[in-house]
Amino acid sequence: MFNYKLTIQYDGGRYKGWQRLGDNDNTIQDKIEKVLSEMTGNRTEIYGSGRTDAGVHALAQIANFKTVEKTDVCGIKNYLNKYLPQDIRVKEVKEVPENFHARYNAKRKTYLYKICNNEDINPFIRKYSMHVEHILDIEKMIEASRYFIGSHDFTAFSNAKSKTKSMIRIIFSIDIKKDSDMIEIRMLGDGFLYNMARKIVGTLIDAGLNEISPECIPEILNLKERSRIGCLADACGLYLEKVEF
Amino acid sequence: MFNYKLTIQYDGGRYKGWQRLGDNDNTIQDKIEKVLSEMTGNRTEIYGSGRTDAGVHALAQIANFKTVEKTDVCGIKNYLNKYLPQDIRVKEVKEVPENFHARYNAKRKTYLYKICNNEDINPFIRKYSMHVEHILDIEKMIEASRYFIGSHDFTAFSNAKSKTKSMIRIIFSIDIKKDSDMIEIRMLGDGFLYNMARKIVGTLIDAGLNEISPECIPEILNLKERSRIGCLADACGLYLEKVEF
Repeated sequence: MFNYKLTIQYDGGRYKGWQRLGDNDNTIQDKIEKVLSEMTGNRTEIYGSGRTDAGVHALAQIANFKTVEKTDVCGIKNYLNKYLPQDIRVKEVKEVPENFHARYNAKRKTYLYKICNNEDINPFIRKYSMHVEHILDIEKMIEASRYFIGSHDFTAFSNAKSKTKSMIRIIFSIDIKKDSDMIEIRMLGDGFLYNMARKIVGTLIDAGLNEISPECIPEILNLKERSRIGCLADACGLYLEKVEF
Repeated sequence: MFNYKLTIQYDGGRYKGWQRLGDNDNTIQDKIEKVLSEMTGNRTEIYGSGRTDAGVHALAQIANFKTVEKTDVCGIKNYLNKYLPQDIRVKEVKEVPENFHARYNAKRKTYLYKICNNEDINPFIRKYSMHVEHILDIEKMIEASRYFIGSHDFTAFSNAKSKTKSMIRIIFSIDIKKDSDMIEIRMLGDGFLYNMARKIVGTLIDAGLNEISPECIPEILNLKERSRIGCLADACGLYLEKVEF
């Protein structure tokens, strides 16, 4: 078997997220698998580095698929970009060792979150950022972000349903920058639970609005109580930016 | 009568352009007039500085409307932004002298054109720029742009239908910048005929692709033959950026 690694960019706005749920379900995985299956002549499955929620974007999602026949990497890229919708683009195709698996081998992920912090909505980025009308206190957000760094049980900051799998994840860094009215938050971690990136951002926004005090975050992490956490930041502001192996 | 000047931003993607053509015609003018008429209680007309074509955007379109009653400018802005679709935003409202007219008093306009010059389509800016796959020769585009500067009869570079009105316009400057794969073209003129900005850009693209020689432009201008001009650049790359009075 030959194994190919894809780097994929998508505007998640009109999709129900990465993961295929059924047939013709308007997910990104389903759209790509349909084209790959046409190309290979066999039903072909694709393995993403992780699921992105409905409406979440990707600057560089990584996925892999296997074929019986060796195929030219440029040919794969061109075929996919010819038949995929224009809001899903394959940026790179590489042949990788047969044991490479985009999900199991992913070591670190970077998520980028964009906030447009302005009284007025910007019509050009409203689908690509979260609009926050009241001016956010960036210092308070940075202070709050520090409490997430390290290894924690993120039960309180996720909507993950599994009761058997570990809720412990490591956040290596959270970087917050403001350039005029755009705020960019970069989160680097070993993995993110369902909704975790958006719940962390939601909490940073609450801190920036002085609706919660940053010092409360360790207690919320320890109590593992979801009801303590309010805001789930909008999906349209979130981008899977980088996957490291 | 009280006269109010509006600065309006819009994503033109889903509209049939600025100018109202009939009732409920999905034009930007019609959308704004409907909300203004609700606000004032009278059928209210709005005068734009110029028409933008279907699909063309505006960073700062200027328009004015008149009312019998004096109205608070913040109240006008908030009312419009509350009831307008989110892809049309009022950035500023100012009271102006009764004789101010956004179209008749406009002296200079700046149009910005964005080209994404990359083998691959970028899913995030595909609706906000024209995608050109083959690498453009910027020097050739700059050389070509110089032939448009000055006062010319732009019949060959427009689809304007009037046979009585003057086709003479002045282009003060055309500025072309490239930053990684994004090319920005800024055109400053005393006015632009129907499709003129997009026809000039189309010609600059042809020059950048070495499909026409820049030195042919004066001849095309002189002959006033439309058939000599091929490409009309995509509407989605064009933005009305500034109107000066």
